[in-house]
Amino acid sequence: MGKLMFLSDYMEGCHIDVLKKLNETNMESTSGYGTDKYTLSAKKKINDLLEEDNDIYFLLGGTETNQVVIDKILRTYEGVISVDTAHIVGHEAGAIEFGGHKVIMLPNHDGKLSSLDLDKYMINFYKDSSYPHMVQPKMVYISNPTECGTLYTKKELEDIRNICDKYNLYFYCDGARLAYALASTKNDVSFKEFAKFFDAFYIGGTKCGLLFGEAVVLRNDSLKPGFFTTVKQHGALLAKGRILGVQFDTLFTDDLYFKIGSNAIKCANILKNGFKELGYKEYIDSPTNQLFIIIDNDKYEKLKEYAEVTYWGIYDDNNTIIRFVTSWATKEDDCYKLLNILKEL
Amino acid sequence: MGKLMFLSDYMEGCHIDVLKKLNETNMESTSGYGTDKYTLSAKKKINDLLEEDNDIYFLLGGTETNQVVIDKILRTYEGVISVDTAHIVGHEAGAIEFGGHKVIMLPNHDGKLSSLDLDKYMINFYKDSSYPHMVQPKMVYISNPTECGTLYTKKELEDIRNICDKYNLYFYCDGARLAYALASTKNDVSFKEFAKFFDAFYIGGTKCGLLFGEAVVLRNDSLKPGFFTTVKQHGALLAKGRILGVQFDTLFTDDLYFKIGSNAIKCANILKNGFKELGYKEYIDSPTNQLFIIIDNDKYEKLKEYAEVTYWGIYDDNNTIIRFVTSWATKEDDCYKLLNILKEL
Amino acid sequence: MGKLMFLSDYMEGCHIDVLKKLNETNMESTSGYGTDKYTLSAKKKINDLLEEDNDIYFLLGGTETNQVVIDKILRTYEGVISVDTAHIVGHEAGAIEFGGHKVIMLPNHDGKLSSLDLDKYMINFYKDSSYPHMVQPKMVYISNPTECGTLYTKKELEDIRNICDKYNLYFYCDGARLAYALASTKNDVSFKEFAKFFDAFYIGGTKCGLLFGEAVVLRNDSLKPGFFTTVKQHGALLAKGRILGVQFDTLFTDDLYFKIGSNAIKCANILKNGFKELGYKEYIDSPTNQLFIIIDNDKYEKLKEYAEVTYWGIYDDNNTIIRFVTSWATKEDDCYKLLNILKEL
Amino acid sequence: MGKLMFLSDYMEGCHIDVLKKLNETNMESTSGYGTDKYTLSAKKKINDLLEEDNDIYFLLGGTETNQVVIDKILRTYEGVISVDTAHIVGHEAGAIEFGGHKVIMLPNHDGKLSSLDLDKYMINFYKDSSYPHMVQPKMVYISNPTECGTLYTKKELEDIRNICDKYNLYFYCDGARLAYALASTKNDVSFKEFAKFFDAFYIGGTKCGLLFGEAVVLRNDSLKPGFFTTVKQHGALLAKGRILGVQFDTLFTDDLYFKIGSNAIKCANILKNGFKELGYKEYIDSPTNQLFIIIDNDKYEKLKEYAEVTYWGIYDDNNTIIRFVTSWATKEDDCYKLLNILKEL
Repeated sequence: MGKLMFLSDYMEGCHIDVLKKLNETNMESTSGYGTDKYTLSAKKKINDLLEEDNDIYFLLGGTETNQVVIDKILRTYEGVISVDTAHIVGHEAGAIEFGGHKVIMLPNHDGKLSSLDLDKYMINFYKDSSYPHMVQPKMVYISNPTECGTLYTKKELEDIRNICDKYNLYFYCDGARLAYALASTKNDVSFKEFAKFFDAFYIGGTKCGLLFGEAVVLRNDSLKPGFFTTVKQHGALLAKGRILGVQFDTLFTDDLYFKIGSNAIKCANILKNGFKELGYKEYIDSPTNQLFIIIDNDKYEKLKEYAEVTYWGIYDDNNTIIRFVTSWATKEDDCYKLLNILKEL
Repeated sequence: MGKLMFLSDYMEGCHIDVLKKLNETNMESTSGYGTDKYTLSAKKKINDLLEEDNDIYFLLGGTETNQVVIDKILRTYEGVISVDTAHIVGHEAGAIEFGGHKVIMLPNHDGKLSSLDLDKYMINFYKDSSYPHMVQPKMVYISNPTECGTLYTKKELEDIRNICDKYNLYFYCDGARLAYALASTKNDVSFKEFAKFFDAFYIGGTKCGLLFGEAVVLRNDSLKPGFFTTVKQHGALLAKGRILGVQFDTLFTDDLYFKIGSNAIKCANILKNGFKELGYKEYIDSPTNQLFIIIDNDKYEKLKEYAEVTYWGIYDDNNTIIRFVTSWATKEDDCYKLLNILKEL
Repeated sequence: MGKLMFLSDYMEGCHIDVLKKLNETNMESTSGYGTDKYTLSAKKKINDLLEEDNDIYFLLGGTETNQVVIDKILRTYEGVISVDTAHIVGHEAGAIEFGGHKVIMLPNHDGKLSSLDLDKYMINFYKDSSYPHMVQPKMVYISNPTECGTLYTKKELEDIRNICDKYNLYFYCDGARLAYALASTKNDVSFKEFAKFFDAFYIGGTKCGLLFGEAVVLRNDSLKPGFFTTVKQHGALLAKGRILGVQFDTLFTDDLYFKIGSNAIKCANILKNGFKELGYKEYIDSPTNQLFIIIDNDKYEKLKEYAEVTYWGIYDDNNTIIRFVTSWATKEDDCYKLLNILKEL
Repeated sequence: MGKLMFLSDYMEGCHIDVLKKLNETNMESTSGYGTDKYTLSAKKKINDLLEEDNDIYFLLGGTETNQVVIDKILRTYEGVISVDTAHIVGHEAGAIEFGGHKVIMLPNHDGKLSSLDLDKYMINFYKDSSYPHMVQPKMVYISNPTECGTLYTKKELEDIRNICDKYNLYFYCDGARLAYALASTKNDVSFKEFAKFFDAFYIGGTKCGLLFGEAVVLRNDSLKPGFFTTVKQHGALLAKGRILGVQFDTLFTDDLYFKIGSNAIKCANILKNGFKELGYKEYIDSPTNQLFIIIDNDKYEKLKEYAEVTYWGIYDDNNTIIRFVTSWATKEDDCYKLLNILKEL
């Protein structure tokens, strides 16, 4: 028997419904570069859900999407503000700097950006008379859930939006795992409400049931002109765009996107409750599909024989922080098996 | 009945063998970013075929691949030489310039670069005493077949390679449609021989039977360090890398890559002979899967009711240049149907 | 005795009036980065002369100025149109591409851009349905006088401006040698009229009497915000900005700028008439301070013993094209000496 | 009477010897772009002093110099390590990111980089198995003196150099105020010894007696090819290069460079001792030409009527941190006047 898989949410292919549709449409001849009927249908379904009329583009991966969007929003001398634990800071190999832009770091609070920190930064920025000599802050990047699995409340999003309005900053959300935020039992903001906070955001597909694909939603009209050419210039335009269209069209049919989120959260909650019962302490109190616990080093060594999890860091001399991730592909049964193993260690 | 489809070679999904394998492996859990067993197997198969030990990377699309490779090879102040009809000149929305590099254009000869032109350019470059004030030529880009469907002979490749050696230039081939070059009845160079001319080249998958994907083959050792990080920085690293691995592994199993090439060429030759018999004049004498004919404007209008082809340009007041493309997906039967329609116009 | 110097217009230091002012102000303590009184005064003098209220910045050199202005005007996926003989095409080592922008080349007519070519290019650009896949043309670059010493007429500038308005293109002029255009006896446009054609242009100082320095005049309001920070980001902001301020303040005091132009043109006309009398054929009929003649190879060899001129290219097997440049520093007497030498060769 | 000037070291023009030489050579005709005899002589003098045979280039300003050198040393996916208080972090408007490079920040210790921090960072970097997904550290940037006026000891430079060697990192020093480091009474490293620690460094002229100009010294052979073209591509090549050559030639004649350093340090020491006697507490114990004291807010307000100094930040509710800078242009007499004023406040 293979090991239990809790390593990440991109270890399998795609949801069976998505695969089925790719099979059905495989030999159809369609026009390229996202002009096909599946892409159009997928865009319409997302806009219908949000009750808006946004420009929507389907890109391939998260780093690429952040790079393209940030590059489109900013002029070279402008920077993007984010917390120091953000994906764009540490794990994109300088993709934002490649486009010429500085990432301006603020401290994270369990992975989240604080509107107070943001306000303070902006006040101090303009207080310094030499501010024209510095990179001009022009947008705010967050992800929801964050890299630490934590969630923004409606109030927190409102507060950041207000600071953005105060200083004329664009507000952008990396939604690589957005399905798992929306499905969280702690979440207090609907998809429709969520969208309205942002100038742009993306709906992650890679980690939420697709082979690959991220849907960029451009809400602010000023960002729309030239986006297609920007995508092309970054080499991010898929020739057979319908592969993305078919996938997203399926994802937004019969609530598949939300079902995928629910499965991961249901499994994560089984684990979360189980960890508590077994006396494992959480490193961060995450309400989404990434859970972080502190484990005795010896137990961790044994656990590795049975399950694949992510090493997250040293806690102290005797303990390690590890991460478990659930997804659309996780089975409830495997969660109970994992808890049994943790019990026996 | 739908129209006959000769628009391009990326209008359908993927070859049935590739799709089958994607289905079979879909629910397997594998490690990400190209470290999975399918990716490793695919790389081995390509290297075995070439009897070499190259670094191989699977990227997603052609523009992205050209951008990443050129950006890796060149320092900012260095430029890439190509013919004026090249894909990187006109159809990549400035992807090369986005990386900071100038494309130095030489005139094309039916889409091909002439080694004599190249030599002359280099001689004149260094003759001008102000050459350090100019972009330094450091690599040569060609595609085979070219944008015009034409083919380089072994002798022509040798000649360019020699000029590259003379001036210390890297030599790179865009192989978006390489399968159709290798399968051409006019081709005089084997896959193994072909590879040896280049410091780097890519084996196109998107236009040759895959959903998407291009295999970069790095032959020159000096290009290898840092390539993975460069790919990541460009946002070109697929999380579920095994989607590329599975596809290329299938493509290089049981000669599928070569069968795909053969089908397109067989169909193209049926068309080419048919055009001749019917008295249609070819605009360019192409021996691969893109055919260009001159057609009376009225006939072209009628043809559009029955078939999808590409408008290529005005020939004269009464005639138009159009392009027919065959592929792995083209049926012989459709070629004969097309010829019948052309006969009846 | 040293050789007669007709090599270029940047071989000496600066005009004596400028040097005098630098001496007088040397030990004054002023604020940095262009906030000093001399810089403010220089800006006011230029605006007063143009009867406008432009944003004006003093940069250091021509390539830097073109790079900063083009980078400020364009988004990365947008390109600048210029003739193939332009300075930004061949002699700036890829400075424009360094900022991510493609230079879109049109053929030159004695160094000049034709409004008809421009219109035709734009018509064809939007006719091609795949235009969003290409670099978007967004600005037009010219220099006046051109690299070939030729001059735009008022009518030609009007015609280009109209095409720019038709297609929403910014119009920018590189005025490295503008003083010599305005002073030309063939010039039909005043400084004030000239300015009104452009969204931005620069008044060259390096080749027109200063140690170094180019004054960017931003006329279009949309280009103004963020220009200071763009200059800083390019490393083009001089700490002791007053060195530029003092120089330009002097240049626009007592008509020095126009006197400098007049001296060069007077000298150039002496040469031009002399060449004609002596039977030397001009390669290009230039009305400014650069003159191009065709000379017998043997005579050219002898000439080199007496004068420094620029080799411009091969005319035919027996003849060479050479360039003579006059400037603010050229003495009439030296022109007559040169003509005598040419007579005696 | 004007206010006493202690604002910075770039408030006046240039040292009288430099100005004199610019006057004497003004009407000479020389070749451009740094090929003139004064530039060659200046390079020779620096190399003679260092007893080395380096490639030396004269650029115009500090930000430009850092940008060009870092851009030349790094590939796009590589980053530069520096302390968080470095000039390249906060005061260059993103000039390093403009070239595509991330600045990797480590904490400062009174403005200095610790070799222990550096070693720890590198160990952890390679420990993380996902390091190829991150910007690759490839060079270390320091300035000496630092932004806080502090000085590296010989031992500290040796330690950093050793870590650089261990991890194959280039080591680069921003020497904007190097003259004031070398002249410091606390300095324990000679100019010749200093140079040997680095792959490249620059000798600042702008803040040390010139109108402008920084001399880049390239010691590592691998950095030399293509440097000229890189300078040109950045728009950093002065047409009348001799203006830089004449200035640096004078600066390295008759020990002027060292005399300039000595004057600033002598004046700074007068102030430093005076502050102590008067009971002013230093915010940082700086041994060079920048001094930072803590001053009562009311006294600071009064001081502003008599002297220009730099506001550095809030110390606490009642006190402010201010900076005094001495230079080649500071008079001893003014230092005593300042101390008298501070006494009377």
